[in-house]
Amino acid sequence: MKTAANTDEKYMREALKEAAAALERGEVPIGAVVVETARGRIIGRGHNLTETLTDATAHAEMQAITAASAALGGKYLDGCTLYVTVEPCPMCAGAMAWAQLGRLVYGAADPKRGFMRFGTAMLHPRTAVDAGVSAEECGTLVSGFFKKLRD
Amino acid sequence: MKTAANTDEKYMREALKEAAAALERGEVPIGAVVVETARGRIIGRGHNLTETLTDATAHAEMQAITAASAALGGKYLDGCTLYVTVEPCPMCAGAMAWAQLGRLVYGAADPKRGFMRFGTAMLHPRTAVDAGVSAEECGTLVSGFFKKLRD
Repeated sequence: MKTAANTDEKYMREALKEAAAALERGEVPIGAVVVETARGRIIGRGHNLTETLTDATAHAEMQAITAASAALGGKYLDGCTLYVTVEPCPMCAGAMAWAQLGRLVYGAADPKRGFMRFGTAMLHPRTAVDAGVSAEECGTLVSGFFKKLRD
Repeated sequence: MKTAANTDEKYMREALKEAAAALERGEVPIGAVVVETARGRIIGRGHNLTETLTDATAHAEMQAITAASAALGGKYLDGCTLYVTVEPCPMCAGAMAWAQLGRLVYGAADPKRGFMRFGTAMLHPRTAVDAGVSAEECGTLVSGFFKKLRD
């Protein structure tokens, strides 16, 4: 039986593929996809490219939001769900607020760098939020990356 | 006599030129420049392009940060000052935090949309902040734009 939870995991697997692509480039492995909620169509993808582009703003979510807006030909993503492997930072949450994102689903929490330090007031009031989807897999990818850097 | 205040006003005039360029395109007139603090050299410029690019992330500061990082070949802007005509939003403040910006100077306050709702904890702990430079001119440009839209 296909449930909403299955669907979320399915799209989170797509975000995880993006995170794997970041890892291959030596980037912090975080990935994101934007899905048109009603049609279930992926309209934007992105992975962290801050080192590759030497640009601190080149987070997975920023790429995915820009790509989705280009695909839609409009800057509002109220009919969309953004899946990202790790809790967004305040920059990315702020971008989601401007885009009036319909729904945010994230995997692993990031208590140190995540936007939740500032609360959901950082998002648009109509943005629904679900956390913890495939959290262990998403988190292990990042913690493994940093462990390897330290070793 | 050349004082620090003169210098700030001089670079804010450059940010205002960017804001004027946004206005010409029918964009909310906000502009920014990034200056290498020690050399006084402008290494990044940007103006709001959210409508032109149909991208909610295309704020003046984001363009200027990306341009400055490209000019320096590095993603850290700790030796730089960013001048922007209006108080940055949380997205842009979050970008400044990642870039470890040395100093932020803004013109008009934006109590409704600005990052100061969440406090300076949004910025990097070493980022100095000065507000109110050419505030009236910066603010009038934006309020005039919205007044014209309503008329």
